[in-house]
Amino acid sequence: MSQPQYLTGDKAGIEEFLSRFDVFLFDCDGVLWSGDYLFPNVPETLEMLRSKGKQLVFVTNNSTKSRADYKKKFDKLGIPAEVDEVFGSSYSAAVYIARILKLPAPKNKVFVLGESGVEQELEAEGVPYIGGTDPAFRRDIEQDDFTKLADGSALDPDVGVVLTGLDFHSTYLKMATAHQYLQRGAIFLATNIDSTLPMAKSLFPGAGSSGAGLSKAIGREPLSLGKPSQAMMDAVEGKFKFDRSRTCMIGDRLNTDIQFGIDGKLGGTLAVLTGVSKKEEFLAQDAQTVPLAYVDALGDLVG
Amino acid sequence: MSQPQYLTGDKAGIEEFLSRFDVFLFDCDGVLWSGDYLFPNVPETLEMLRSKGKQLVFVTNNSTKSRADYKKKFDKLGIPAEVDEVFGSSYSAAVYIARILKLPAPKNKVFVLGESGVEQELEAEGVPYIGGTDPAFRRDIEQDDFTKLADGSALDPDVGVVLTGLDFHSTYLKMATAHQYLQRGAIFLATNIDSTLPMAKSLFPGAGSSGAGLSKAIGREPLSLGKPSQAMMDAVEGKFKFDRSRTCMIGDRLNTDIQFGIDGKLGGTLAVLTGVSKKEEFLAQDAQTVPLAYVDALGDLVG
Repeated sequence: MSQPQYLTGDKAGIEEFLSRFDVFLFDCDGVLWSGDYLFPNVPETLEMLRSKGKQLVFVTNNSTKSRADYKKKFDKLGIPAEVDEVFGSSYSAAVYIARILKLPAPKNKVFVLGESGVEQELEAEGVPYIGGTDPAFRRDIEQDDFTKLADGSALDPDVGVVLTGLDFHSTYLKMATAHQYLQRGAIFLATNIDSTLPMAKSLFPGAGSSGAGLSKAIGREPLSLGKPSQAMMDAVEGKFKFDRSRTCMIGDRLNTDIQFGIDGKLGGTLAVLTGVSKKEEFLAQDAQTVPLAYVDALGDLVG
Repeated sequence: MSQPQYLTGDKAGIEEFLSRFDVFLFDCDGVLWSGDYLFPNVPETLEMLRSKGKQLVFVTNNSTKSRADYKKKFDKLGIPAEVDEVFGSSYSAAVYIARILKLPAPKNKVFVLGESGVEQELEAEGVPYIGGTDPAFRRDIEQDDFTKLADGSALDPDVGVVLTGLDFHSTYLKMATAHQYLQRGAIFLATNIDSTLPMAKSLFPGAGSSGAGLSKAIGREPLSLGKPSQAMMDAVEGKFKFDRSRTCMIGDRLNTDIQFGIDGKLGGTLAVLTGVSKKEEFLAQDAQTVPLAYVDALGDLVG
């Protein structure tokens, strides 16, 4: 496998690289910012790309935020962006349910294990749901619940899908309820299956960990609608109708972002070194996932 | 593989089978009872075995109950049994930590994800613990928690073990805290890893599901101290000093109980058909796990 092109400080190389693409898909955390810290020259880089007529799409696995929530984060950090340019895993899941699964109403109700970002995106796509942030499920399980879940009297017969995302309010009751729906044939989806969530310079359990108990109980894995699942790429393409050969994925994680672009047969992938993956990982002889090019930081594109 | 011997109604066969063993290890749920329903002739069967001088040990994966809790259940159902005859997976874990791991104090503290059964058994073995049923962990995670977990200020430096069991009060905060201990090198144990819990004639998430999120986050599996893990057999043997060739495991689940006995090279295994596994599973040509003998119900041993 050929070595990736190192673009930091190479003005001509950057110019040539950018000319090959019309569309840039961006991962956010670790690329544009880290938590609430905006990396240098990020707004300038995005402005430069826009001035060249490039289309920008912000593709994130964070399921706790809706596109509207994300827009607020962009605003707060002073990054110009439109809601329609944001494509989160919750939105991806909602689009998949509404436009690809297309279950006939009323049997299209979704039981949600996740936060309000999931709920907002389902609402935006007109998909009915229960669970989620409903306080009725944020409580201890009682003896009576076991009986009523087992005999089905506590279940909604219209639930056809179980959707798991990152859930900071997970309970045994929610998991047991979702488990019953899956045992009765509900489709099993996840916004994403990242095992960890980088926070406060450490790692915390991610969406994949939130859903792992349910996977273990039912004995199978959900279909993930987040990177690197190509179900997400299909959903992005369905919305933006881009030419994959003229599209580049930019990200910091080899096994999600860069793999996502490679599996999607995009024209290119660009790794940045401001996040999780280190250059030694893709420069190694036995590297599994190698980007087409890399920069130390996104801002180096205008540096 | 030879076919298992069918003992129901075969008085001479039963007599000969029982004569081969001095010790009987019993699974409980699905063998002695189902929930709160005692199967017919169970007290009489146990009495018959005791009258022949057999040693009885009740080996259960249920981690929510201590041996004392189990004794109460035996009493309630009218089954004569002693606390010392009960060997639960919580006790198994406590014995493993106290007598096999033998971490030097004070670095032997255990962070518990589980119910009071785990706590009681750790106390009985003199093992210090935190977490468990402590209300301080049964709450929502706050932004401040992420910071204090990441920098370690919310962590107890003496925690050397994370122990997961079935937890009806799981929270993201508990999982995130345990994840931090594991990232700092704590030993990862589970009372048992059963994926499901049979309740109310249905299946609910089991101890393995309670701990699956943590396994996913840290990227490795815990050492299980429950059936069919031989770490449990070693703990049982450590306490009762039996001759394995003169010991028989009786249970209803092929992949836990019967496998536990086979892997432990016991003299025999006896399947009962009052629980999870069906005889078709072990009578099949390609059966993986075949008991030495089987009865329709445990009470058939006294006809």
